[in-house]
Amino acid sequence: MNTAGYTPEEPIAAIATALAPAALGIVRCTGTGVIELLSKVFSRPKALLSAEGNTIVYGWIVEPGDETGKKDYQSIDQVLVSVFRGPRSFTGEDMVEINCHGGPGMVTEIFRLLTNHGFRAALPGEFTFRSFINGKADLTRSEAVHEIIAAKTDTSRSRAAGRLAGGLFQELDAIKQLLRETLAGLEAEIEYPEDEEAIADAFDSRQLEEVRSRLESLCNSWASEKLYQDGVRVVLCGRTNAGKSSLFNTLLKEDRSIVSDIHGTTRDWIESWVSFGGIPARLFDTAGLRESDDEVERHGIQRTQDLTAEAQLILYLVDASVGLVEEDKAFLSKWSQREKAARPPLLLVLNKWDKVSDPTSPEFELGLKLEEFSLDGIIRLSARTGAGTAQLVEMVKDVISCDFSSPASGQVGLGTERQKVCTQEALEAVIHGLEVAHDGYTLDAVVQDVEEALAALGEITGEVTTEDILDTVFSKFCLGK
Amino acid sequence: MNTAGYTPEEPIAAIATALAPAALGIVRCTGTGVIELLSKVFSRPKALLSAEGNTIVYGWIVEPGDETGKKDYQSIDQVLVSVFRGPRSFTGEDMVEINCHGGPGMVTEIFRLLTNHGFRAALPGEFTFRSFINGKADLTRSEAVHEIIAAKTDTSRSRAAGRLAGGLFQELDAIKQLLRETLAGLEAEIEYPEDEEAIADAFDSRQLEEVRSRLESLCNSWASEKLYQDGVRVVLCGRTNAGKSSLFNTLLKEDRSIVSDIHGTTRDWIESWVSFGGIPARLFDTAGLRESDDEVERHGIQRTQDLTAEAQLILYLVDASVGLVEEDKAFLSKWSQREKAARPPLLLVLNKWDKVSDPTSPEFELGLKLEEFSLDGIIRLSARTGAGTAQLVEMVKDVISCDFSSPASGQVGLGTERQKVCTQEALEAVIHGLEVAHDGYTLDAVVQDVEEALAALGEITGEVTTEDILDTVFSKFCLGK
Repeated sequence: MNTAGYTPEEPIAAIATALAPAALGIVRCTGTGVIELLSKVFSRPKALLSAEGNTIVYGWIVEPGDETGKKDYQSIDQVLVSVFRGPRSFTGEDMVEINCHGGPGMVTEIFRLLTNHGFRAALPGEFTFRSFINGKADLTRSEAVHEIIAAKTDTSRSRAAGRLAGGLFQELDAIKQLLRETLAGLEAEIEYPEDEEAIADAFDSRQLEEVRSRLESLCNSWASEKLYQDGVRVVLCGRTNAGKSSLFNTLLKEDRSIVSDIHGTTRDWIESWVSFGGIPARLFDTAGLRESDDEVERHGIQRTQDLTAEAQLILYLVDASVGLVEEDKAFLSKWSQREKAARPPLLLVLNKWDKVSDPTSPEFELGLKLEEFSLDGIIRLSARTGAGTAQLVEMVKDVISCDFSSPASGQVGLGTERQKVCTQEALEAVIHGLEVAHDGYTLDAVVQDVEEALAALGEITGEVTTEDILDTVFSKFCLGK
Repeated sequence: MNTAGYTPEEPIAAIATALAPAALGIVRCTGTGVIELLSKVFSRPKALLSAEGNTIVYGWIVEPGDETGKKDYQSIDQVLVSVFRGPRSFTGEDMVEINCHGGPGMVTEIFRLLTNHGFRAALPGEFTFRSFINGKADLTRSEAVHEIIAAKTDTSRSRAAGRLAGGLFQELDAIKQLLRETLAGLEAEIEYPEDEEAIADAFDSRQLEEVRSRLESLCNSWASEKLYQDGVRVVLCGRTNAGKSSLFNTLLKEDRSIVSDIHGTTRDWIESWVSFGGIPARLFDTAGLRESDDEVERHGIQRTQDLTAEAQLILYLVDASVGLVEEDKAFLSKWSQREKAARPPLLLVLNKWDKVSDPTSPEFELGLKLEEFSLDGIIRLSARTGAGTAQLVEMVKDVISCDFSSPASGQVGLGTERQKVCTQEALEAVIHGLEVAHDGYTLDAVVQDVEEALAALGEITGEVTTEDILDTVFSKFCLGK
């Protein structure tokens, strides 16, 4: 798919809600003449045609039949039609949204009827694309729409909503304003030089320094934003009966802020999305690590080793009432022997802590052995009672996000890889400009760098666009957006 | 769940669209004060409060924060709110529908926010229930809403839409009018008898005869309507390589009017909904019938036999280029030996007909053997080229619906088992009344029967209700309806 197929103004239609049994569904249309087109398959054409923008018209979607008599007049569904008149609409064009009954059959039937009566089936992202080209939203807001739909936790959703509200757009606008002012200063200096020899003095670099600092924080925000979008792989492992499944289920229930609850069950492991304080994690519950004669079980154990190799964090469970046994030590020492950069962090979870009658003895025994492993943390909990799991969640969050502070709710961050690439370009141009100025080159060279930075930032919001950029932004959208 | 939990007028909210990634989602609210309540979590409260009915207000859903500072003000999502003012709404109460971004995270978050700000989570069917008790729709229309959402083919959906449009309600109304006129005639006769001895002559039974006839066609419609709703089980069987999977796939693609495309794959069989001319059929592609040494395969063959035992139709495939072999004959003769009433109908499908170089020879050979099996039909086709599959679809439809004519598009039919039970009651009362009148009993006895019939019909539309009836109707609804 590429944006070459997008033809502005042409009447298009799309099913905008998920195709599953539900109370309501929406079929959405935009383009020139959509209200007139819809009136041909609507029981109350006059009411629809005379409807003002932002009003709702009740009626039936009907198959009007044709003269040949091949198709009879038929009432399809009782609906509410939301009428929007451009430019006061999401796309800026005339729009109608048909709020119908929600079975997949009904929305599909209405969509089919529309495509038989003058509407083209919309391509993915085409509604948002029109909104963009008609100046209703810049590219950062357009991308935020996609981020919201794909968000895995409340925090990721809320970060995206901040960008939809224009947070990133405003920050970029402020930075561009600083760059434009710098440019104006430079050009005045070039036209009416006070002292051609001493450009380093003549050029006040403070604005450009501020730009550098703000672009740097935007670039730094991406690692954290990406973490909240993509999440991490966390693998639960340990001996059979250490309580892995029990902790898995507790973590699933504990944090109700998780949004996407995909369970996959295979013979070898179970996985699900969970949220560690807003960071989405794909949590894997693996087969127990145990020497086994059984072919199937050996296969499962091999899988576990593959999973830990790809993990971004390992939660290693031990039955604290039993203590560390040979297999645990073997696993931990194998893990310790890997280079620090090449191994995922590991938290040792002393489960069944509530069953430890004399906490001093196993803790002492464990303490003796643990120093040699240089673990990233030790936590005592009971997956059965839930005691200690909240602390585990906090600790996991800290370990995962150790390289950056988590974003404050008002703080602006980047939302996509594309935005990161452009911001990085702008930052490099600004750094180069500052060096050039510092090294005493002519101001023309600095002007060039500032102009480059402005162009890179213009790409982010979509002031400067190429078909490539538009393809990158819109092609991953879902239908009806 | 029962309707005892329904509390009219209380503000309730529900997610009305499917919880899956999609462009848009709807959170729906009804009850006294919903507009005021929503305005507390809306960025433009004044615009919302002053909005007229049937208009749309643009704004943001916001978390307003609280005085304790535990929660901060936060923008949640950019939305369009449809405002309805009772009685001009689906439920007859004030309503708002929040059209938001469609990720499961967003709709869930908005729903959660509402339940924290004065809305109760709606129970399944509660919106339609309010629509019923506020006189916006009788029970037949309410039930039709559920039928539409659950419809498996275009025909089942279209039949339900007819009931939603009031087709059944009007027919019942006309019948009740006839009964009321009969009743008035009877009562006049009782008050001012012309000749007490000759009641059989005095009572004109023509109206009651018409009622009987119309109730009979309604009752008869149910078998067909139920078929279009529930569908039938059709099992494809035959030897390995007879082309079962190929026909399965062709049938899946052939009829695009199928709505629900549930595939289940097990080691033993594959199944999917397909449509035979609008009749939904759960089609099973079974393991080949073949003596086998392999344990897994033997297990699959046993399953096939279980499936054919439960089938409402068997499609038995033969590779026509090979002809009937021993295993085919064994299966067909085993089937023939069962009593006609105890076995499903069977169509013999001569597949790979395009590969038969001399059609006279295998056909002749087959013809010889087939008489003894008393098959329900023979069809020649090529699953590979698709030639003949349209005829197969027609033949299947005829065999499945042989006991009743398929409903004409304008003809009224019953939509639920509950309606059938009540109609049957009414019919029996009317038949009894006619017999009583014919046998010369007093008119009071006839009056009693007519009143009984009226009461039974009143139950269908909901004029007469008990909590049991309401539970039956509304408890199976999905949320948001």
